Order: sequence, then C-alpha cells, then structure tokens
Amino acid sequence: MREALRAARASVRTHPNPRVGCILLADDGSRLAVGVHQGPGTPHAEVDALQQAGERARGATAIVTLEPCNHTGRTGPCSEALIAAGVRRVVVAQAEPTDQAAGGAARLAQAGVDVESGVLADEAYALNEHWTRSVRMQRPFVTWKLAATIDGRSAAADGTSRWISGPEARRDTHRLRAAVDAIVVGTGTVLIDNPRLTVRDDADRPIGDQPLRVVIGTRELPADRNVWSDDAPTRHLATRDVREALKVLYADGVRDVWLEGGPTLAGAFLDAGAVDEVIAYVAPMLLGSGLAALQTPAVTTIADAWRLEPVEVTTVGTDVRITARPRLEPKETA
Amino acid sequence: MREALRAARASVRTHPNPRVGCILLADDGSRLAVGVHQGPGTPHAEVDALQQAGERARGATAIVTLEPCNHTGRTGPCSEALIAAGVRRVVVAQAEPTDQAAGGAARLAQAGVDVESGVLADEAYALNEHWTRSVRMQRPFVTWKLAATIDGRSAAADGTSRWISGPEARRDTHRLRAAVDAIVVGTGTVLIDNPRLTVRDDADRPIGDQPLRVVIGTRELPADRNVWSDDAPTRHLATRDVREALKVLYADGVRDVWLEGGPTLAGAFLDAGAVDEVIAYVAPMLLGSGLAALQTPAVTTIADAWRLEPVEVTTVGTDVRITARPRLEPKETA
Repeated sequence: MREALRAARASVRTHPNPRVGCILLADDGSRLAVGVHQGPGTPHAEVDALQQAGERARGATAIVTLEPCNHTGRTGPCSEALIAAGVRRVVVAQAEPTDQAAGGAARLAQAGVDVESGVLADEAYALNEHWTRSVRMQRPFVTWKLAATIDGRSAAADGTSRWISGPEARRDTHRLRAAVDAIVVGTGTVLIDNPRLTVRDDADRPIGDQPLRVVIGTRELPADRNVWSDDAPTRHLATRDVREALKVLYADGVRDVWLEGGPTLAGAFLDAGAVDEVIAYVAPMLLGSGLAALQTPAVTTIADAWRLEPVEVTTVGTDVRITARPRLEPKETA
Repeated sequence: MREALRAARASVRTHPNPRVGCILLADDGSRLAVGVHQGPGTPHAEVDALQQAGERARGATAIVTLEPCNHTGRTGPCSEALIAAGVRRVVVAQAEPTDQAAGGAARLAQAGVDVESGVLADEAYALNEHWTRSVRMQRPFVTWKLAATIDGRSAAADGTSRWISGPEARRDTHRLRAAVDAIVVGTGTVLIDNPRLTVRDDADRPIGDQPLRVVIGTRELPADRNVWSDDAPTRHLATRDVREALKVLYADGVRDVWLEGGPTLAGAFLDAGAVDEVIAYVAPMLLGSGLAALQTPAVTTIADAWRLEPVEVTTVGTDVRITARPRLEPKETA
C-alpha cells in the first residue's frame, strides 16, 4: 500500500478527481503493474493497472489507495472492471466518500472477491484531504492566506503593502499557490493592488500549470487589469454571496481554493463558515495604522472569536508562517 | 571565567547594579574564593571574594565577569581593593560601560597588575544585557509585550480580552515579568482592564519579589484600582512624555521595564524610539474587529514601517511567541 500511495502522490493535478494509485500483485507477491490516475478523461488507476497486466490479472491481488468506484462517469465502474479481469483479492485504503461512486467494495464482495479495507487509511486521507473534504461539503476546500505585520496590518495607511512578506515567504506562497485549483480575491484587491495572481519563479515568470484566477464581487473589472493577462484563465463571479460563488466553482470542478484577500472578502468567507484553513505569514514589522488583515463586524465579544487550532508553526526566512484550522467535528476528519 | 559567570548568574535582582561574579585563584590554580554581588549596598563581587580569601589573596589571580570599578559609590573602588590585597593578575570579561565607573583596568595595569580583558566578553554582555544597554542609553531597556490574535487584535469590539492568550502563555508572561524592574501600562489600561500587574503563580497568588508597577498618563487613578493593592509598589507618572517618564524611572534605579500596553502607549513608546525588544504572543484566533494591538498614526507608508529582526520564534502552548528587536547599530551591541 505504501508503494501504491507513493505512485498516487506522483500525480499532481487530478482535480476534480482524487489522486489514486493501484498495484497488481501476482500470487507469488511479484508486481504485475502499477496504475496511476492522471486526471479527468484518463483511465482510473485500477483500469490503468489492469490494462498493463492484461491476462496476468486473473487471480491477482489489487492494492488500491481509494475504494474502486461503482458508477459510470467518463469511464466505466472500476468494480466491474476488476471482477471482469478475474482479480481475486482487493485491498483498499480510503473508503469512497461520495454517494455517487460508493458501493464498489460491496459490489466486489458480492461477486466473490476477497476485500480488505482501511489499510493505511489515514495516509490515503491525507493524500486527498482537500478533495475528500470538498466532495463531502460539496464546495471547494478553502485556505485563507494572509500576510500581515505583528500588529495585524496587511497594508499601510496609504495602501502600500510591498513587501510585507520577505522573499522566502513570497517564494513559499508561489509554491503553495501552485498546488490549488483556484486563487480567489475580491474586486477591491484587483482594483487597488492589481495583482497578477499567477504562480511565478524567482525571475517573476509564470511557471507550469496555472490555477484558475477567480475574482468575486459586483464591481466591474476594467480590461487593463493584470488578472486578464493570457498567463492563466480567469473568472469574474459578480456576486457578494460566498456560498453562491463556491457553488459555481465546485460545479466547475474546483476542489480547493487559495483565498488571498482582501480583509472584507476574508471576513465574508469566515462569516459564511467557509474557511477550512488559515495560513498566516507574520512579518517582523509594525505599522500602527493602515489596513487590518481581517475586517468584519461579526464578532463583538472575545467569547465569540473564531478559535483555531494551530497545525504548524515555522519560520520562512524572517517571517513566521502559522497554519491553523477551525476545530472540526470528528465526523469531518474520519 | 565560565564559573565566575555561573556564580554571577545565580544572583537574580541586583539592579540598578549589574550581576557580577569573581573567582580568586591561587598560584597552583586552586580556588581561594567565589565572590558574587548581591545588589545595591552589598559588597561588589571582587570585595566579597577578597574578604573570603583574606591574606591568601596576596599574589592571587582574580577572574571577574565585569571590569573592576574605579569609583567610590556606596562602596570603594574595587581596583584599589585588588591592588591593596596584593592581587597579581586580573582577568576580565566585559569592559565597564559607564564613564563613571570606568578606568579600573587601566588603574590596575598602572599599579603593576597583569590585566587581561575580553575573555568570554559576549557571554558576560548577555548576562547583563539589559543593564548594559540601559546605562549606555541612560534610560531603562524597554520590552514591549503584546498578546494579540492572528489578525492583530488585542481585544474584541466590546473591550473584552480575557483570555486571548492560552494558560501556558500567561504563565510564560508571569515568568518574564518576574525578571524585570518595572511593569508599565497607561492610565487607560488601568481604568478599563484594571489589571493587578503582579507576578503570580498558577493559583493566582503573588509570588516573590514584585517589580515596580508604573502607570503613565495624565488621567487620575481612583483608589479602588487593583494597581494600588499592597502586593507591590506602584508609581503613577502623570505625564504623556515617554522620554520624561523613562528618565524618572532610570533615576529611580529602574534598568528594565516590561511595557504591557495599551495600543496608544505602545505607539508612543515606538514613536519615541524607546522600544528595544518586542515579545508578541500570537493566539490562534481571529476577531475581525476590535482593538488593534498597536495604534499610532506615525507610519503612513510601508517603507517607513518599523522593521524588526526576529530573535526567537517558539510555541507556548497553542500560542506563538515571537521575540524581535529593532536593528541596532554595531556600537550598541559591542
């Protein structure tokens, strides 16, 4: 299973699908095939492995990081493919979290296949955590990223904010941006700061597959704004309703977003209960006035503050990166 | 010298004097005496050691963590005492930083004593850093302590702030409070939050020697405020001038203070260039409105932000403690 997880990890951008690996083993334990899912429209990991193994799959054991699907989407159900290929035993890590695709394990067992589930389930969950949480919530997993001074300001009184974070933190931001489906800002940020919202290298050139750029808000966006560059696709969602915007993005295949501000939009996401993770870059700097990193009148007394659990604290150059999450109900993490 | 430093470290509250240790060694390297300065009115470390050694001091070597003083204060000059006792050789770590007491090494050399200086000078400086910086600046060394949420708020909109920091961070605060000469707040903090400003144990009882409580500001302080309790001495400095207040405290023997707020007083200290260290406890919490941890209109553009150098970042319970300092000119650290 560790090898199957490693294979799955090698695939990067599979959304709206999860990353899945599948290893086929012969009776003597020798490896017949390593299958990996490479994203929508390509074979699922099980089918990929079965195609490589051909007739040798008969009587084999399949080690799969996610419960084989039981529905017909762009491809047929993997449960049926495994049965048809004569696979004798299936070992599964994570159970399928969507109702739509669930039932694969039961279908296999019903067909006389020996099924074992829950092997390294935590690691498999971690591999597709954003995807799993997203399909359960039926909205993208939201990470709010903020860069602020020790006194919580994200810009000076005159609006200037370059550079609150140091070069290492900016590089770190680009690395993390690269891993999500979409980067979200409000119209205010586009009008005032005019960011490019692309993943760039140290020489400031866009690199690799770019996440979707999403601008939320009802104000118009002039055509000369940097978000309209050819470097990446862009969507303007002319709404102030966070849940509505996330619904549209989810339907569009977006499973995780990186919310970059500004303070009012971040407040709207928090008010909507739609922040799943906070990544704060705290710079060793004081301003004493200017723009607060977060602005919403929702909380008026300390007892009602949004209380988070720190997940990780690390220094990135001279900045401190704090990753924290709202406390979850146990059912949400299982 | 390491042993002399260790002896000096064992003494806790010697201010307005520095912590000093002195070891007297016989010709064969055997230890004759370990002297420690225990604070104003008690013998200096050299004299303490000489008194213990008596006649055996003749021809001995003195290892002193700070250059022997050359002036007559509450006690006579140590340089003369060492000469009179017949000490043959003196090894010094840190040079005396005050003009008033300087010249001891030169006086010893002039009297034919063999003097070596600068041995473990950095460690000796660290031992008395607040004192050294203070006597050079002729004002107390100021540490600004703040407790804030990730978005930089130190209280909710209704003024409530209990408890932004977790229990471990509060305990840490008491530990650090215990080491300074004075705790400083503004009248606003006393009127609104009514803090006790004492060093307390986990059961909330005052413990040990209490630092002086200092309230700065022109508003009157009603007699029923907690700062007037019998647990510790209190001074109300009816001024808005930070430099003036620090001058008074310095003259009173205060060598380091722990500035605890509020945001306007902290801003006044920063504006006056009178913050030497910032200790920020960042709690994993978001408020979105309420009192900013720091409030001053002095900085209007990002280029003018107070830029600090992080000295230490650590987690204290669920809080993150960031210790940072303004960049210093080289002469200030030597």
